[in-house]
Amino acid sequence: MKRIELPPSLPRTVVLLSHRAPVTFRRSDGERSAKRGAGGLVTALSDLATQLEDVRWVCAASSEEDGAVAGEHRGEAVPIALSDDPHVVEGDDGEHAVVPVRFVAVPADQHERFYAKISNPVLWFIQHGLYGLWSAPDLGDEEHRAFDDGYVPVNEAFADAVADEVQAAGGDALVMLHDYHFYLVAGRVRERCPDALISQFIHIPWPGPDAWRVLPPSMRERLVRGLLGCDVVAFHTDTSARNFLVTVQELLGLPVDLSAMAVDVDGRTVRARAYPISIDVAGLRELAESPAVTERVGELSQTLANDECRMILRVDRTDPSKNIVRGFQAFKLMLEDHPELAGKVRFLALLQPSRLDVPEYAAYLASIGAEVARINAEYDDLDHEPVDLRLVQDLPLAVAAYSVCDVLVVNAVVDGMNLVAKEATVVNRRDAVLVLSENTGAHQELGEHAVTVYPFDIRQQADALHQALTMPLQERAAKLRAAAQTVERNDIAAWFSAQLADLARAPA
Amino acid sequence: MKRIELPPSLPRTVVLLSHRAPVTFRRSDGERSAKRGAGGLVTALSDLATQLEDVRWVCAASSEEDGAVAGEHRGEAVPIALSDDPHVVEGDDGEHAVVPVRFVAVPADQHERFYAKISNPVLWFIQHGLYGLWSAPDLGDEEHRAFDDGYVPVNEAFADAVADEVQAAGGDALVMLHDYHFYLVAGRVRERCPDALISQFIHIPWPGPDAWRVLPPSMRERLVRGLLGCDVVAFHTDTSARNFLVTVQELLGLPVDLSAMAVDVDGRTVRARAYPISIDVAGLRELAESPAVTERVGELSQTLANDECRMILRVDRTDPSKNIVRGFQAFKLMLEDHPELAGKVRFLALLQPSRLDVPEYAAYLASIGAEVARINAEYDDLDHEPVDLRLVQDLPLAVAAYSVCDVLVVNAVVDGMNLVAKEATVVNRRDAVLVLSENTGAHQELGEHAVTVYPFDIRQQADALHQALTMPLQERAAKLRAAAQTVERNDIAAWFSAQLADLARAPA
Repeated sequence: MKRIELPPSLPRTVVLLSHRAPVTFRRSDGERSAKRGAGGLVTALSDLATQLEDVRWVCAASSEEDGAVAGEHRGEAVPIALSDDPHVVEGDDGEHAVVPVRFVAVPADQHERFYAKISNPVLWFIQHGLYGLWSAPDLGDEEHRAFDDGYVPVNEAFADAVADEVQAAGGDALVMLHDYHFYLVAGRVRERCPDALISQFIHIPWPGPDAWRVLPPSMRERLVRGLLGCDVVAFHTDTSARNFLVTVQELLGLPVDLSAMAVDVDGRTVRARAYPISIDVAGLRELAESPAVTERVGELSQTLANDECRMILRVDRTDPSKNIVRGFQAFKLMLEDHPELAGKVRFLALLQPSRLDVPEYAAYLASIGAEVARINAEYDDLDHEPVDLRLVQDLPLAVAAYSVCDVLVVNAVVDGMNLVAKEATVVNRRDAVLVLSENTGAHQELGEHAVTVYPFDIRQQADALHQALTMPLQERAAKLRAAAQTVERNDIAAWFSAQLADLARAPA
Repeated sequence: MKRIELPPSLPRTVVLLSHRAPVTFRRSDGERSAKRGAGGLVTALSDLATQLEDVRWVCAASSEEDGAVAGEHRGEAVPIALSDDPHVVEGDDGEHAVVPVRFVAVPADQHERFYAKISNPVLWFIQHGLYGLWSAPDLGDEEHRAFDDGYVPVNEAFADAVADEVQAAGGDALVMLHDYHFYLVAGRVRERCPDALISQFIHIPWPGPDAWRVLPPSMRERLVRGLLGCDVVAFHTDTSARNFLVTVQELLGLPVDLSAMAVDVDGRTVRARAYPISIDVAGLRELAESPAVTERVGELSQTLANDECRMILRVDRTDPSKNIVRGFQAFKLMLEDHPELAGKVRFLALLQPSRLDVPEYAAYLASIGAEVARINAEYDDLDHEPVDLRLVQDLPLAVAAYSVCDVLVVNAVVDGMNLVAKEATVVNRRDAVLVLSENTGAHQELGEHAVTVYPFDIRQQADALHQALTMPLQERAAKLRAAAQTVERNDIAAWFSAQLADLARAPA
């Protein structure tokens, strides 16, 4: 395990905060078991955390057993070996990289309001432009309570845990907060730990000030002001960073400097920066060679991706921002335009059901199923249905599909980055064409090597699919190679180093 | 009739363009009749047009008879006396102000695509933030055709009519284009008439660049580039003017100057400006004294606005951007919070049905009716239903209601200006409180004299209604007086003069 060397001007201690934990404990049949956290961000942060000399990770207790483990350590950070078989380390463990993990438990009803009433529907919808403002949102007593007695106290609880860890390190630490769940944390940490160096990375798009006016000033001003507790507020794209500063200017009336990408507040300078996140290229390629993936490659090659059949692929959560329904509509339109392709092209959709407790998500999943049924019913004379919809989360299957697909579709309404585009690029072996929404962060880096799609234009998406399927081999190969090189150059380590280098230049 | 003196550096000829005509002809029982055009903009422009020495007005033929009248004049401008009894003037008419009106007739199916498929749903929805992007819009073949074979050729037809009029005046004219129907006109007029001085006034909000990305580049770039044919692009608010320039920068990559509020393109300078539109204060006050209004004041005072009953009023088209449903929900919530007010407060809603050929509008009208039914059913023990919903367009009734209401509600999702707020302010006689959305153009001028509402926050709107109803008389009187003075200072004549003065400073 190689160590990350922190630039000398940075504090030695790093305190991470993410909502999701790097490990989750369960109890069944009296036995405690532990599992690594899933998801791109936690995976990336876990890799980084194990390479840091002195790190503490604050995260949410997501199970009763997490709470029990935390309780056994008097609410303090639990030393955990983040190996394939994660476990609590009692005493010294020379073998594994041990990361102290502090689980924060909040009352379930408060957490529900914080997570399922504010963070995921309201903030997510605002930041992805998903509200049709004539009918949604309706902010009534329930939503006000969800904010005042959910988002606010949960943020306070996490801020206090972070501040405890900073103070335990002598007050001088590098604090790295993550994402939209925690817009109120930095302000409170700043109050308790004025000398901390605080950054927050926001992994979803930051829209312009108009979008934030959906919330009343009592909410929106508090959220933005909370973030100004940071030294650096980081995003995946320059557009989001610029939108953040314009929001600060329009909502709080603070004079921002768009050439320096900074704003002065309370005698401090807060900078907005963009660092496009990436993937662990070597790790993913290693996984692509594993038996689990190889086996699935065999399956897919028999049915979906072979000399007789080209395979279009998408891999997404069933999130309305992913634009899955319009993607199928475009596929259907392409088949109508080009009946010669029916039976010769299949669309594999690996979709992980997501946030089904949010009514809009449940409805969206249903509309995905409806659209797939329409297409498959229309082509019922074929040996195989044109769309192969699998509602699963299966990483080896996804990587296998990446490697054998002919076209990868990412047509998101808007997406902070979209790592699927980067992942497929570095493991594909069939000169796949990337069909990529202009509104993804990934488009900033990979757009010139992809077929760009405009996510609301079904006609154009249908044409783009056809263009991708009929692109000459040489052009496909060249584009894929260029895209892969781009990802290799800016991998996850480069993403983290760039942040550290910038933070090292921050005024004390 | 007083004359408007054009600043000496301006061309003598003014060519106006608006979609709606200042007059419409009908034929029934073999008789031709003519009616003045309705709507705030046409009324305002009619007043101005009659005061100009040399003006031509280009507009859409909206009836077969309009086309017949135009045909009788060989498609050239028809001299029309814009009096209360409008009529075609053959020969000289010393008595009335005569305005040459050029009716442009386009094929009905083309006009339908231009108007009911692009202008009103797509552009209106984008500019008012009404799309929930996960499900709308879907741009398919029909929408592409509506643009390519509707919006584009209709804009070309109107541009050619405008250019004809400019050339008839020797090529040197002041061209004043109006609104979102005609984003492609200025570019074409500029090509044919390089020396014309061209302005376009956009009466609806201009959102930031993200909102425009709903359209593919083939549409959005053409629309924005079309507007850059102007010398001045004008809006009601500074926010819209700024958003326009940022859109130019982000979508076309042109370097804009936000301090000069201008952008250089093709060797010309295009400026973005804000001129908040207003009303004819004297004319409205005169109308308020008319018998038609006085009679309706009597009716309203008996039933809705008197010592026993306070009256809340709204006057709107049934447009989703007007936020009518949430307004009723807030009223209901206020009655639940304050049962002592039931029976003592009534809500008069004068709603003009609008654009019912657009499905979203038809659905919105239905949801208005549903919400009103819910409220009135809940309070069925009262002598009078709490909500008096009248689906009418009746200007004397609206003015009567302005004058006797106790609270005027304008809670729009977003609104370019909203003249209802200004109109009520100058004729009210009961010290009415203005409850005004922060997202209206009017809020820029009147916000400090109003109770501000945040249009998505039903809880806050309910509290605001209660605050307005319980405000001490002295405070109400002072606020209303200050608001009225603000409107008096910037009336419709001032709005037009400011534009002319700025245009006179434009480089030739």
